[in-house]
Amino acid sequence: MQNVKGTFDYRGEEQRLRNRIRSVLEDRFALYDFEPMETAIVNECSLLASKYAGGDEILKEMYTLSDQGGRELGLRYDLTVPFAKFVAGSAGLELPFKRYEIGKVFRDGPVKRGRLREFVQCDADIAGITGPEAEAELMQLAADVFRELGIAIVIKWNNRRFLGELLGRLGVGETWMPSVMLTLDKLEKIGAAGVEQELADKGLEPDVYGPVVRLIEAELPDFEELVTLFGLSDKEGTAEVRRLGSLLEGTGLNGICKFDPFLSRGLSFYTGTVYECFIADGSFGSSLASGGRYDAIIGKLAGKEQFNCPAVGLSFGLDSILECCRGRVLEQRMEPVWLVPIGDTMVETLRAASMLRDAGIWAKLAPSGRKLKRTLAAASAEGARYVILVGEEEAAAGQMKLKDMRAGEEMTASLPQLVCMLEKTVSKRK
Amino acid sequence: MQNVKGTFDYRGEEQRLRNRIRSVLEDRFALYDFEPMETAIVNECSLLASKYAGGDEILKEMYTLSDQGGRELGLRYDLTVPFAKFVAGSAGLELPFKRYEIGKVFRDGPVKRGRLREFVQCDADIAGITGPEAEAELMQLAADVFRELGIAIVIKWNNRRFLGELLGRLGVGETWMPSVMLTLDKLEKIGAAGVEQELADKGLEPDVYGPVVRLIEAELPDFEELVTLFGLSDKEGTAEVRRLGSLLEGTGLNGICKFDPFLSRGLSFYTGTVYECFIADGSFGSSLASGGRYDAIIGKLAGKEQFNCPAVGLSFGLDSILECCRGRVLEQRMEPVWLVPIGDTMVETLRAASMLRDAGIWAKLAPSGRKLKRTLAAASAEGARYVILVGEEEAAAGQMKLKDMRAGEEMTASLPQLVCMLEKTVSKRK
Repeated sequence: MQNVKGTFDYRGEEQRLRNRIRSVLEDRFALYDFEPMETAIVNECSLLASKYAGGDEILKEMYTLSDQGGRELGLRYDLTVPFAKFVAGSAGLELPFKRYEIGKVFRDGPVKRGRLREFVQCDADIAGITGPEAEAELMQLAADVFRELGIAIVIKWNNRRFLGELLGRLGVGETWMPSVMLTLDKLEKIGAAGVEQELADKGLEPDVYGPVVRLIEAELPDFEELVTLFGLSDKEGTAEVRRLGSLLEGTGLNGICKFDPFLSRGLSFYTGTVYECFIADGSFGSSLASGGRYDAIIGKLAGKEQFNCPAVGLSFGLDSILECCRGRVLEQRMEPVWLVPIGDTMVETLRAASMLRDAGIWAKLAPSGRKLKRTLAAASAEGARYVILVGEEEAAAGQMKLKDMRAGEEMTASLPQLVCMLEKTVSKRK
Repeated sequence: MQNVKGTFDYRGEEQRLRNRIRSVLEDRFALYDFEPMETAIVNECSLLASKYAGGDEILKEMYTLSDQGGRELGLRYDLTVPFAKFVAGSAGLELPFKRYEIGKVFRDGPVKRGRLREFVQCDADIAGITGPEAEAELMQLAADVFRELGIAIVIKWNNRRFLGELLGRLGVGETWMPSVMLTLDKLEKIGAAGVEQELADKGLEPDVYGPVVRLIEAELPDFEELVTLFGLSDKEGTAEVRRLGSLLEGTGLNGICKFDPFLSRGLSFYTGTVYECFIADGSFGSSLASGGRYDAIIGKLAGKEQFNCPAVGLSFGLDSILECCRGRVLEQRMEPVWLVPIGDTMVETLRAASMLRDAGIWAKLAPSGRKLKRTLAAASAEGARYVILVGEEEAAAGQMKLKDMRAGEEMTASLPQLVCMLEKTVSKRK
């Protein structure tokens, strides 16, 4: 009867909160002109294992299976690869193509530090736009979503190309670059000393990692200072940072955006801008959303050197956001109207339930055959305000009794009258 | 770049329609006091393969996999087993427990006749109620959902216990019962002659299947006639049919409910009432929703002979419902307001998009760097009514130009004025 380690069953108030976060996301995605999409969970293993897809770190954690026809299959480990597959495989797709998807992904990794084996990702991606307006739109989307959820965030951002140019100036060669960036991604977790240790362990020369670590340890340097200091003013990465920076400033987003020249993001497929959203007061360590530009994957998956499809994405982590929202009141708590059949009045009770529900009122049928006292105690324990008692005598006269548990009042009336009254006082579903 | 056979990627209008059906279901489930639940997709193989779970027919189609720790796992093939597992494993769970779940299930079966390898099920289940009010509530739920979707349905229903008693009178022994019921489930598809053939092939004696087939071939007999004819008046199945029948009549549901003494449903775990919803005009053969009472599974899964937990469920098939809704207009088609940057006005355009979206208006950013003529042609081809042109001169004066493509009119105004005007004319997201 146990769940598989790293998987959970969600229910009740927790699931209601998850659904509420989901619905905030869905509404915003739609306003931002992302169309809904739902891709397959089971995929060809060859697609998921493609060297242009998730990379070694993720492949180790891919669940594989085979079907009755002997095909080698895998469960998706993210929503980016199915998106890239769809774009790469859809000849004639009108670009820009903007879609969102909310769905489960699966990773057969070690279950620790809150990592789950199956979890929900909520991704918005834009394919076909080279300019920084795509990044700006996604960062604005993040700002809007978290504002609506009542979570104050900071969006740390950087540009992989710029980071590469900067590290190059510090003596990191091309072959070392991906590995150094992977280590830098752990900076938040392991600190500068941890980065130094890991780079040393990897075999990087001290005269290379030394300057890197010293720069990290310095107070977060200003972007333009770095550009001047390392003579990067004519570099492409520098130009990209400036272009996006000016959009962020113009749209007022710079208030919550913070340029971080060492932000790197773990995945190797990012080619330009990367960003990561954190709670502003630092009370929750994990990022709540993250993403970046990956201009190469789609073309490479399509297997056409000429076909180049720029793309940018933003992925919200439902579970992290849930942790931050726990205890907050995200919506007016609704409560059901209780319906209690007394004696042989199940027909009348079901009819009353139907009429209430048609009026958009959440109606709860109390179990029949219990003592009235016990039922009222249960309703009261749940904080119910209204209870409708359907007794035989009243029902025969077309009436039922409404108890207002809070006011301690009772009234007897016809069902349409009760519905009419409750419609005005009970908060409704829609 | 191909999808695995039997899996699909849904997008655009089709996915919008799927989401709309989902949201009708979710709202109704909530009004009917079902709490939301989301169970794990990956489960222990031993649970899914339990003899009290899906039965042999389904087990053949179960995807199995193993994790890095060597555990034997499987993908869920329905939502009933995870529900039963949860109830069986939750000591002290307050009953009745009503939950809904909408999620993907997986079957590694032959891909034909529109059967999919992964598909969405939408289930509402009630655990802990013995009385027929649970069935009546679920049948009412089905009636409400399809009324809201604009699909006229008929709910065929029967009772497995009654069917067993009837078949017993016709000479079918206990050992033959499950197999005969399985064949009867195919009646819609293979007809009476097909049933006769299959029963003969299975090795049933002609003097047993003969009467069965003759009864099937007769005009659908009236329930009370059958009771009298076969002397079933003191049987438990008969009493159950009468009790539910009287609730259906009392609540006015009998108009769309039709008792069918041969309805059997394939799954072996049903113990009482079974029902299946079909489109009333017969224009779509597959059932749109179905379910029934399964009083034994939960207790058996819990492994306690004493623990008996009655349960009833109703499962909606999203894909079948989608087929019926195709082409229907389920909601007012909304359309985005286009935003077109002209020259170097991306900042102003992004700001305008943000303000529109905050007002609940779907805003679409036209790709920059295209000829205006081409952009307007695309907007027109999509049926867009409003296009906002953000030119450099106007933007410098805090203005932008609104084109009403249908009326062929233009006006220049400040952004707040435009938002104010559009708020009144454009249908909004929420």
